[in-house]
Amino acid sequence: MSIEKLDRALEAEIDDLAAQGRAKAEERVITRYLPPLGSKGPRYCLAGMDKQFIRMNSNSYLSLSNHPKLIQAADKATHDFGVGPGAVRFIDGTFVYHQALESRVADFVDKPGAKIFNSAYTANCGLALTLSTPATHWIGDQLNHNSIIRAMRIANVPSANKGIFHHNDMDDLRRCLDQVDPGVERVVVVFDGIFSMRGDNAPIDRIQAVVDPYVPRFRDGVITVVDDSHGIGAYGKSGRGTPEFCGRQPDIIVGTFGKAFGVNGGFIAGSATLVEAVRQKADTYIYTNPLSVADCAAATSALDVCDSAEGLKLLSNLGRRTQQFRSGLCDLGMETIDGPHPVVPLMVRDTRKTRELVETLFCNGVLVVGLTFPVVPKGDETIRFQINAAHTESDIDEVLALLKQF
Amino acid sequence: MSIEKLDRALEAEIDDLAAQGRAKAEERVITRYLPPLGSKGPRYCLAGMDKQFIRMNSNSYLSLSNHPKLIQAADKATHDFGVGPGAVRFIDGTFVYHQALESRVADFVDKPGAKIFNSAYTANCGLALTLSTPATHWIGDQLNHNSIIRAMRIANVPSANKGIFHHNDMDDLRRCLDQVDPGVERVVVVFDGIFSMRGDNAPIDRIQAVVDPYVPRFRDGVITVVDDSHGIGAYGKSGRGTPEFCGRQPDIIVGTFGKAFGVNGGFIAGSATLVEAVRQKADTYIYTNPLSVADCAAATSALDVCDSAEGLKLLSNLGRRTQQFRSGLCDLGMETIDGPHPVVPLMVRDTRKTRELVETLFCNGVLVVGLTFPVVPKGDETIRFQINAAHTESDIDEVLALLKQF
Ligand SMILES: Cc1ncc(COP(=O)(O)O)c(C=O)c1O
Ligand SMILES: Cc1ncc(COP(=O)(O)O)c(C=O)c1O
Repeated sequence: MSIEKLDRALEAEIDDLAAQGRAKAEERVITRYLPPLGSKGPRYCLAGMDKQFIRMNSNSYLSLSNHPKLIQAADKATHDFGVGPGAVRFIDGTFVYHQALESRVADFVDKPGAKIFNSAYTANCGLALTLSTPATHWIGDQLNHNSIIRAMRIANVPSANKGIFHHNDMDDLRRCLDQVDPGVERVVVVFDGIFSMRGDNAPIDRIQAVVDPYVPRFRDGVITVVDDSHGIGAYGKSGRGTPEFCGRQPDIIVGTFGKAFGVNGGFIAGSATLVEAVRQKADTYIYTNPLSVADCAAATSALDVCDSAEGLKLLSNLGRRTQQFRSGLCDLGMETIDGPHPVVPLMVRDTRKTRELVETLFCNGVLVVGLTFPVVPKGDETIRFQINAAHTESDIDEVLALLKQF
Repeated sequence: MSIEKLDRALEAEIDDLAAQGRAKAEERVITRYLPPLGSKGPRYCLAGMDKQFIRMNSNSYLSLSNHPKLIQAADKATHDFGVGPGAVRFIDGTFVYHQALESRVADFVDKPGAKIFNSAYTANCGLALTLSTPATHWIGDQLNHNSIIRAMRIANVPSANKGIFHHNDMDDLRRCLDQVDPGVERVVVVFDGIFSMRGDNAPIDRIQAVVDPYVPRFRDGVITVVDDSHGIGAYGKSGRGTPEFCGRQPDIIVGTFGKAFGVNGGFIAGSATLVEAVRQKADTYIYTNPLSVADCAAATSALDVCDSAEGLKLLSNLGRRTQQFRSGLCDLGMETIDGPHPVVPLMVRDTRKTRELVETLFCNGVLVVGLTFPVVPKGDETIRFQINAAHTESDIDEVLALLKQF
């Protein structure tokens, strides 16, 4: 049997990852969700543990996953149409709920149209498959999400057709634009809206200002794409995300329903022609089942909630709790990266300390993510805290009190 | 604005696809599911049409999407844990339902372990990312699914490290194995279990017999991988799929919960070490939200149904209806590809006739897929019928009567 030989080789590869400090720890398993009670926000139970945990490592910024409206919407869709589509979109796997979500999200982000995907991951792959030609040049921020990097691969973009600029560095973006071969017909500048490990945002207004003068140089111009997975729903005055925060629309928006909106799924929003091109060319749209109607119904309902008075209240809650946490860190003399986003990185700048603090928090019922070398450069060791709208004032105080003791 | 320039270019690309006969028609939208009634199986309504349709283009072979047990399982999971995971697996996005589905499917396919993905599409991508090294050589059937082709891309497999054999041609597979560079450490032979456009299966027993003598030549041997998306649940005596049908287990099984099982999601099943390597290395597992707990609960429930007396009854129904349809085609003197799979291709071998027949069926309330050049070679024009366990004897008679008239 080959599998034993393969196992030996894979074991060596896994050991190697562990030796480099890159291996992922065993997965913890959530066994129970406990709804908010009194002054406490939601709590979670983990397999093999008595304690209850505050999740400060969830992307569910508006805390909508357990919202009765979303649950009811999911239930109704499932009862009407079943638990799965049974086919891909172009072979009659399209249900009213898919269409409804596409119009709803296009409307929400103020673009003429949208296509939904199973995830933002496959949306990025699909966008690259749609836009790439041999004469297309891609430019990205060095801290872009893994799905954008892999999207370049799946679309077969050769390294000569790629440029990377230093994180949020406009001069370096200009350098990348200057270096594009004059034979190129189409330039795409792609960046995360919010950088998920830091909570800072791409300056879309400044990026667009850098890009604008280059538009006439290329047959199809210079297309800007924001992947606003951590921004949409959680950022900007009305939760429209980073474009709203920056006061400037990029050409194309990619996003997820799996973070602030608390569901699952991704989308690409842009012109009607782009959306049609995605439908025709994006293999990760064409050759795979679409989201279940339950996911679509829940996501549509999440957008509705976000767009209501209740949504504005959740957003303002989120802002207040984020501010409370950020001020608390500041009072403790701790270093962070400024900004209004609910991703709050605590810059520990030491591997041992980071590990100890993550462990202390865990032992005291707080789930966070620690980032150490080689995931971040040496000296940039960080603990990422993520605030959400269901955290209470007393939850945040509890976490700050733990940090004070350390 | 660049978007107008881009739109012009994309319009030209879409026109080009249309001119080649490769453009996908507008999507039809399902607006209603009507449960079985009397001698009639389920019917579907489409936007803008009065008629009710029989779906003979659905992959939901066991017709479980609307099964009360699955719907109830989905509801319960959603009520207990919410509509979305809020995080990726390794950052506390793992819920009991994810783990339960992983053990359940591993047990079902008789492998030591499994990892679940959002789809079989991303499972194939994840497997390629896990197994590929610069010294890995991939060999695939020429008719492999798009997700396997794209998986080679996302994992950056150079063309020198790939071989393609003629469909189900064992001599040609041997040729591919003979041509592998002696410096290669790991060979992976990957193939669809059931070829979805034809309904024929990969002869896993014969493939394994061809492969076995080559195992000692390479450090990690020659790994066989079946993507049994159209086989699992629908094929083999107890619905275990193509390995059961062929009486031979490959090293690794990829599959979907989105076809026979009527839900959504994909998996990779194999050795415990492989599963751990997937968890550590498969970016399409690591960097994206997992399935909702509703999907997991419904899929687990689908496996339970399939494994019960009820499941065997569904499977035998499916077999009987498939046989009824195949005999009917034969009685009409029509050409098909023999075999027991519920994918039944009607070989029309003419583009105009194929289009007309698809249209006639549609006008009479039957949804099918027509395959014409360039999707299939000239002369291989086909209509694909897919039987499922909820089709009734009278449904099949109705469709055969329409074919007879033509
Ligand atoms: C062989 C094969 N693999 C993968 C897929 C995709 O399955 P999923 O919808 O789970 O991505 C299909 C379905 O079209 C298929 O036929
Ligand atoms: C920028 C960015 N894009 C995409 C994703 C993936 O989102 P999804 O879970 O919808 O695939 C993430 C989340 O980790 C992200 O931060």
